[in-house]
Amino acid sequence: MRHIISVLVENKFGTLNRVAAMFSARGFNLESISIGETENTEISRMTIVTRGDDQIISQVLKQLNRLVDTIKVSDLTHQAHVERELLLMSLKLNTTSRTEIFELINVFKGKVVDIKQKSITIEIVGSPDKINTAIDLFRPFGIRELARSGAVAIHRGEH
Amino acid sequence: MRHIISVLVENKFGTLNRVAAMFSARGFNLESISIGETENTEISRMTIVTRGDDQIISQVLKQLNRLVDTIKVSDLTHQAHVERELLLMSLKLNTTSRTEIFELINVFKGKVVDIKQKSITIEIVGSPDKINTAIDLFRPFGIRELARSGAVAIHRGEH
Repeated sequence: MRHIISVLVENKFGTLNRVAAMFSARGFNLESISIGETENTEISRMTIVTRGDDQIISQVLKQLNRLVDTIKVSDLTHQAHVERELLLMSLKLNTTSRTEIFELINVFKGKVVDIKQKSITIEIVGSPDKINTAIDLFRPFGIRELARSGAVAIHRGEH
Repeated sequence: MRHIISVLVENKFGTLNRVAAMFSARGFNLESISIGETENTEISRMTIVTRGDDQIISQVLKQLNRLVDTIKVSDLTHQAHVERELLLMSLKLNTTSRTEIFELINVFKGKVVDIKQKSITIEIVGSPDKINTAIDLFRPFGIRELARSGAVAIHRGEH
């Protein structure tokens, strides 16, 4: 099944390498990964999405916990959490598609970040599922380029 | 100097490992990295932020280009591009701080994604600089947990 894992690590040289290597040694492909500093610039949080057997993943997480640079590993999958993803997408634009594109942007509460005569760049935030749907619905207009942040997640509420 | 690099890769097992290893072998720490599938589920785009000497980075990018799984490497640093980051942040909440917090959320055009009696979880999108400022301004209220997506970037306009 799909797992969403949050890992607090020390912001040291090569940490990402060690974490990625640990998953790949066990045969897990990382569906998405996003890493950024926390409020403490010496500590980063990684959000990792992977798919696999619950038991094997829980073994990998135990190993991860033992890495020197790891501060905390949480499998958010079965915990209350908020999960969001950011999509930047550049689309082809012409006078016939324009209205439809603007309508769809509104539906997804998206934002226009750049517009030229023949192209429009938009920003959409939502659950990874919502982002998938957005890509499918905008696809017929012609996607020029897109980048997704990968899932970002934190605990919900008074954890 | 700061470099923002976009890499299109085949969605294969271990690709992230190989890319991360290439930077770390040359002594570059990755400030942020975000990876997600593109409109083609067999291809992913990585956005990497790192700091270093222009010439050495351009050597690393040439090496990256030669990796089997690499489709395209673009150093967006000196090209017109759109750059955004997503922040999820959970803050302490009490009756005295509430109004100030709500005001700041408006200033940053943020969104409340979860609220409990003693905590609030917000989502903010902006340039990495804007996200840094938001964290600094919300810090005095008490940050419970935060996760950043790392920078996400694509070419601007009719590239």
